[in-house]
Amino acid sequence: MSKKVLIVGGVAGGASAAARLRRLDEEAEIIIFERGEHISYANCGLPYYVSGVINDREALLVSKPEAMRNRFRIDVRIFSEVTRIFPEEKAVEVQESTGKVYRESYDQLILSPGAAPLRPPIAGINDIDALVVRNVTDIDQIKRFIDEQQPKTAAVVGGGFIGLEMAENLHARGVDTTIIEMSDQVMAPLDFEMAAILHEHIFNKGINLILEDGVKSFAKKDNGTLITLQSGGEVQADLTILAIGVKPEIKLAKEAGLTIGELGGIKVNERLQTSDPNIYAVGDVIEVKHLVTGQAALLPLAGPANKQGRIVADVIAGRDSRYKGTQGTAIAKVFDLVAASTGANEKMLKKLGIPHEVLFTHSNSHAGYYPGATRLSIKLVFDKNGRVLGAQAVGAQGVDKRIDDIAGVIRNKGTIYDLQELELAYAPPFSSAKDPVNMAGYVAENIINGDVRMIHWQELSKLKAKDICIIDVRDEEERRAKFIPGSLHIPVNDLRSKLSELPKDKEIVVYCEIGLRGYVAYRILTQHGFTQVRNLCGGWVTYYPAVFG
Amino acid sequence: MSKKVLIVGGVAGGASAAARLRRLDEEAEIIIFERGEHISYANCGLPYYVSGVINDREALLVSKPEAMRNRFRIDVRIFSEVTRIFPEEKAVEVQESTGKVYRESYDQLILSPGAAPLRPPIAGINDIDALVVRNVTDIDQIKRFIDEQQPKTAAVVGGGFIGLEMAENLHARGVDTTIIEMSDQVMAPLDFEMAAILHEHIFNKGINLILEDGVKSFAKKDNGTLITLQSGGEVQADLTILAIGVKPEIKLAKEAGLTIGELGGIKVNERLQTSDPNIYAVGDVIEVKHLVTGQAALLPLAGPANKQGRIVADVIAGRDSRYKGTQGTAIAKVFDLVAASTGANEKMLKKLGIPHEVLFTHSNSHAGYYPGATRLSIKLVFDKNGRVLGAQAVGAQGVDKRIDDIAGVIRNKGTIYDLQELELAYAPPFSSAKDPVNMAGYVAENIINGDVRMIHWQELSKLKAKDICIIDVRDEEERRAKFIPGSLHIPVNDLRSKLSELPKDKEIVVYCEIGLRGYVAYRILTQHGFTQVRNLCGGWVTYYPAVFG
Repeated sequence: MSKKVLIVGGVAGGASAAARLRRLDEEAEIIIFERGEHISYANCGLPYYVSGVINDREALLVSKPEAMRNRFRIDVRIFSEVTRIFPEEKAVEVQESTGKVYRESYDQLILSPGAAPLRPPIAGINDIDALVVRNVTDIDQIKRFIDEQQPKTAAVVGGGFIGLEMAENLHARGVDTTIIEMSDQVMAPLDFEMAAILHEHIFNKGINLILEDGVKSFAKKDNGTLITLQSGGEVQADLTILAIGVKPEIKLAKEAGLTIGELGGIKVNERLQTSDPNIYAVGDVIEVKHLVTGQAALLPLAGPANKQGRIVADVIAGRDSRYKGTQGTAIAKVFDLVAASTGANEKMLKKLGIPHEVLFTHSNSHAGYYPGATRLSIKLVFDKNGRVLGAQAVGAQGVDKRIDDIAGVIRNKGTIYDLQELELAYAPPFSSAKDPVNMAGYVAENIINGDVRMIHWQELSKLKAKDICIIDVRDEEERRAKFIPGSLHIPVNDLRSKLSELPKDKEIVVYCEIGLRGYVAYRILTQHGFTQVRNLCGGWVTYYPAVFG
Repeated sequence: MSKKVLIVGGVAGGASAAARLRRLDEEAEIIIFERGEHISYANCGLPYYVSGVINDREALLVSKPEAMRNRFRIDVRIFSEVTRIFPEEKAVEVQESTGKVYRESYDQLILSPGAAPLRPPIAGINDIDALVVRNVTDIDQIKRFIDEQQPKTAAVVGGGFIGLEMAENLHARGVDTTIIEMSDQVMAPLDFEMAAILHEHIFNKGINLILEDGVKSFAKKDNGTLITLQSGGEVQADLTILAIGVKPEIKLAKEAGLTIGELGGIKVNERLQTSDPNIYAVGDVIEVKHLVTGQAALLPLAGPANKQGRIVADVIAGRDSRYKGTQGTAIAKVFDLVAASTGANEKMLKKLGIPHEVLFTHSNSHAGYYPGATRLSIKLVFDKNGRVLGAQAVGAQGVDKRIDDIAGVIRNKGTIYDLQELELAYAPPFSSAKDPVNMAGYVAENIINGDVRMIHWQELSKLKAKDICIIDVRDEEERRAKFIPGSLHIPVNDLRSKLSELPKDKEIVVYCEIGLRGYVAYRILTQHGFTQVRNLCGGWVTYYPAVFG
């Protein structure tokens, strides 16, 4: 007898599971229940519809109910909310938007309800029209508001991926946009100094970026919203977007008695099975195992959701398919820059007490002699044994590629030696003979081997120039622009001839623009009897935005 | 006592070794001998200087002798050819361009002489000015010729990387360019059907691309060259470029009695040591171990050469560093397309008798709903156990990234399951939730599991439509453009309702545009009792250029 599989939620994981399951099992009865109007829509593309970068609304609807019916013989029921699960009876209760309520039985149930935008209990939040960006209906509402009301100002609460993407697209529509972010940085998956590169860029683009300040209250004012900040500051906005974050939609699962993890997501095993063996869950609603830390994590990402959809279909079709964990690879275009990360960041490892090393490189995105190369900043996080734990990258080009390269090594529990050995595609328009990822591997080895001792920007910024000897080994021209106050200036090529002028009793910190010449200077000094030397990791390019930005 | 290291050849591997060695050993005496005028020049950028894409000649000179002297205290001797090695005495003979000859002793000698452009003994080759593209002096000569002689026509003999790059840059200068290639395809690292995508593009760009025809003779004519082809055809060219290939410069090594491999490169061990323990060799002159096939190979590539440079410096400095092999990752911009490959191709595996499977995918370079997505064609080569053996990709964007992703898996001797699990950076401007590389992994699994049986373009093109039942499952509109003669037309969505019209006694081949709907059709048919079904791998997009292109 053919099996009957119900799927709650027709986006990403749900839609992916349905299509795969049909391909594997022509006979199964497959029903998708979608609360809203749309299934399988381009949720990651929604912000770009606001500005018209994505112009065609139809393009947002990746697969429509009739297409799923025609091609995959899947019974797609939109405007149909599953309101209850009866695990004992293997049945769900469905409420249509018409009010009609009915039951549907299942052999297997797949939960793919996603995660809902957070609406924290801030004073006045229910008095104003604070819009969120979750689905096509939401973005229709935002677009209609802009088209009809022509707002002059917008406030985006939250500087994460969606907040930044919304700010960019609102700005592109000519709306004067403010981002309000409670922490000291945008894009939480990045560490501070990498986000600092973005801060400058976002500011230069004309966005009013408010950091380290939260919303104290919302109030209606002049057809818009008056936002009062924790600091006492005020922001007046014609349009207010909440992009604070999301939380798994676990109500249904919780009421059905399924086990919920400590982080508030549904617990599943490697086969994506919940605590009820007939109920599976995929996507933003589940807790995953973080591939690097091994800890449970909430990582609402489209890639993993789609992969889980395929895996759950395989499992239901009787195959031995397993989900091994999520490493949190994520990327966002931020105006003319791109920021991406994978694996664990330093904040996360510090919190968990996991020992680690970090380094910064700033390479050309491709061979410097071929036109169009731009700066590519990488932060690599690794441990003393060389295992790569995480990476972050910011730049105008080639960021996605390098994060992918490193993501592959992390997926494989690989090391910095693997980064060195990656044989990547090189021709001048694409990379350098030693790719930035190879370079990061080399620098990491130098650190682990003790071929260079690094000082990081946090520590150097706290030291007093008079207590140590800081040497700027850059060229005249670079020095002229800006430098660390109190530093000596000895270009690296002159260093060997000035050794006698340097103090042997003080710690010496060398720095250059990106850390390469500093490394050469370090090697020269330590081989000429200077024992207390450190090189500023990432050089001036890491130091400046982090300390002065 | 400090050691004395001589390096023959100051480009790529040689320069890389010198700089690394100095950083590790401030005391070593390091001398680079360079026969020509320039060290460490941008050899991969040379073709772009012809067109002015790289405008600044200085930019080609990545590191100059004085810079190596000043920063690394390396004694760089240009116009100094090492003419003999005396291994017993650990010394070399050096001939300066002035005629002066002297000896220099060494503790260790590093050979990095590179590979020389082939000049096959074709009739008349020495009567004409056939130019090659190896170094800055060569490209100066070509540029000067174009600037001064204003050639109207050019012939490029050889359709490899350098040939194609030269053709593109000559064409950009307004020179009517012919490529003469002896084999049936350009870019030998690609298999035929992938190169076929390039053929159409090159032709459409206005290049006269002659395939399967070699040069019979050269002769001077009208201030230019008359090229007579094997076929009897003739090409008249004001400028003739030889880009037939390169061969290792082993004269010096051979005369010194060092072991030369069967392919004509210097034999080295994992530490890049030649048969003389005090002599090392790196770069295009050596035979490497092919990472996939395990066979000796000549793979003249900048990336491996630079990595070998670092390794040889480590070894000489007493460290345990080893070179594990080359996988042949290579890439070229070909007008508006990019072509790249890594690992083994099908031709190579067939020659070696190594069993393998192949597949083709044609994905969007990023989410189709975000503007600017272009078609990305991938050929994946793998074995029955799922091990990834090689990949090729052609497209306008994102080719480098996907080849890098797969190169990482190959480097690690990984499988198609690793491709599936790669967690790559996804946002609509960069990729799709299931990246093309993940998709290739899924298709490969479907093949290995027997979830789909593929037919390849070679076989289908030989079958007679009347002997089998070919079903075009594409839409009306796609069908209207072009289709396989004799095929039925049943759009995939209509297939379930037309099953009774299909023959049960004939083999059925389904095809669509890229293979995805064909796969769905395959699943429908085989689950409804049709046992002899195959899906055209890569669909019409692979078939058309390969068969009709």
